[in-house]
Amino acid sequence: MKQPKVAFQGELGAFSQQAIQQLLGPGARPLACQRFDQVFEQLAAKKAHAAVIPIENTLHGSVHENYDLLLQHDVRIEAETNVRIVHNLVAAPGVPFRDLKEVYSHPVALNQCLNFFAANPAIRRVPYYDTAGAARMVVSENRRDAAAISSQLAAELYGVRILKRSIEDDRRNFTRFFLLSRTSSRPVASGPAEKTSIVFTVRNQPGSLFRAMSVFALRDISLAKIESRPLRGKPWEYRFYLDFLGDAREQAPANALRHLGEFCDSLKVLGSYSAR
Amino acid sequence: MKQPKVAFQGELGAFSQQAIQQLLGPGARPLACQRFDQVFEQLAAKKAHAAVIPIENTLHGSVHENYDLLLQHDVRIEAETNVRIVHNLVAAPGVPFRDLKEVYSHPVALNQCLNFFAANPAIRRVPYYDTAGAARMVVSENRRDAAAISSQLAAELYGVRILKRSIEDDRRNFTRFFLLSRTSSRPVASGPAEKTSIVFTVRNQPGSLFRAMSVFALRDISLAKIESRPLRGKPWEYRFYLDFLGDAREQAPANALRHLGEFCDSLKVLGSYSAR
Repeated sequence: MKQPKVAFQGELGAFSQQAIQQLLGPGARPLACQRFDQVFEQLAAKKAHAAVIPIENTLHGSVHENYDLLLQHDVRIEAETNVRIVHNLVAAPGVPFRDLKEVYSHPVALNQCLNFFAANPAIRRVPYYDTAGAARMVVSENRRDAAAISSQLAAELYGVRILKRSIEDDRRNFTRFFLLSRTSSRPVASGPAEKTSIVFTVRNQPGSLFRAMSVFALRDISLAKIESRPLRGKPWEYRFYLDFLGDAREQAPANALRHLGEFCDSLKVLGSYSAR
Repeated sequence: MKQPKVAFQGELGAFSQQAIQQLLGPGARPLACQRFDQVFEQLAAKKAHAAVIPIENTLHGSVHENYDLLLQHDVRIEAETNVRIVHNLVAAPGVPFRDLKEVYSHPVALNQCLNFFAANPAIRRVPYYDTAGAARMVVSENRRDAAAISSQLAAELYGVRILKRSIEDDRRNFTRFFLLSRTSSRPVASGPAEKTSIVFTVRNQPGSLFRAMSVFALRDISLAKIESRPLRGKPWEYRFYLDFLGDAREQAPANALRHLGEFCDSLKVLGSYSAR
């Protein structure tokens, strides 16, 4: 498929769109949705061939909402990618830095650039609905005294000029994205799978996680992620997100998963995939 | 200490302030800081007796920034509490619901009330710097056509009236907070400790986490949380956040921690504490 339609949450120019480019190349056609559940619904209703969702961020942790949606829908993970969150100061063409009085962006982005604002106390921070929308606004209203904080992709998309690159305080800000497709459809991507993501539930007894870990340790399978999440309303049950290195269709991982299934209350394989 | 001064991040009326009340009662004096690192600095500089920080949210996951700050500073966890994130529609006294044309709040709060906006399409969402600040603005400017989304505490603090309670889409939205004090000072709180939080680092070899789990399983110690976090720049090392039930000063937990220390690259006990 040369030009797959790909559902994502956010505005055109959001970091999810950069993830789409990394995962599927420039030919993919992004389909913007307002909410994550709508992303999954568009995919289920065959309005999109694939979907791209953020699953965790190095500063802000896992996106539990998307893990919940992965459990509720018949989708599989086909690939993963990491996007570095780079914030740029952008303005309409011809606006010099010295004229800036205000900077518009999403409050999370503004809060990730506090060193810039500390160094430029005369510039006022103004919250805006999203980063890409702020970039579009400063150029469409031809603001001569205002800039926005946005991604490079949004800058290209909306024709704003980058006045300062990479003004974020912390360069270790990465978001990990998944490429999803319907379980019932042919894979959009193909290739070897190096990692598998699963979600499982065990009762919270001493040693229950130890037993769960044993099925991987006994087969020399490396773990890449583990995270527990308490289940609201079920105080003695825990859900675990686990990534291991290997393809669930190979013998040792398949045996480990069958073994794990013996003492889990629930187990779902979200997909085996590789990084792009 | 009857009126401890407590550093927190955000505005007066933020959910952190509600956590302060739950943890230390109404006598505590909140000290608002703009950033989390400033919260820790105020505590270290003895400008505050204690600090209260969010550590994880049921929808948004762990606050990695605060885990990093816990590792960098000589503080201990003295207590934990959970705050349910309830969003209320608030306006200046006498403003009826039917006159509303705009609702101001932090975009994260606006996005957690999408069902309300879908049911009221004539009301425009307007991003604002924070929820408590939005409540203060609608009353201080005596806006007759605008409301804010804020906590009940902010409503009480700024004298706005609650037009609709609990308009959030998801009632399973809880934030867990820690009460911190300086390791070098006497504890602010006291009482039995039911839970212990630790952070440790192991090399990513098959079975390394299994060995780490064994020190708890062999002593029948229950785990309440485990989460791995890849270390940027050290692709083969992982940091783990782990909570177990028990007091690190008791014999079995103390033995487990000594055992764990034998094969960890680093291990820090953040504190033993109880819930409030």
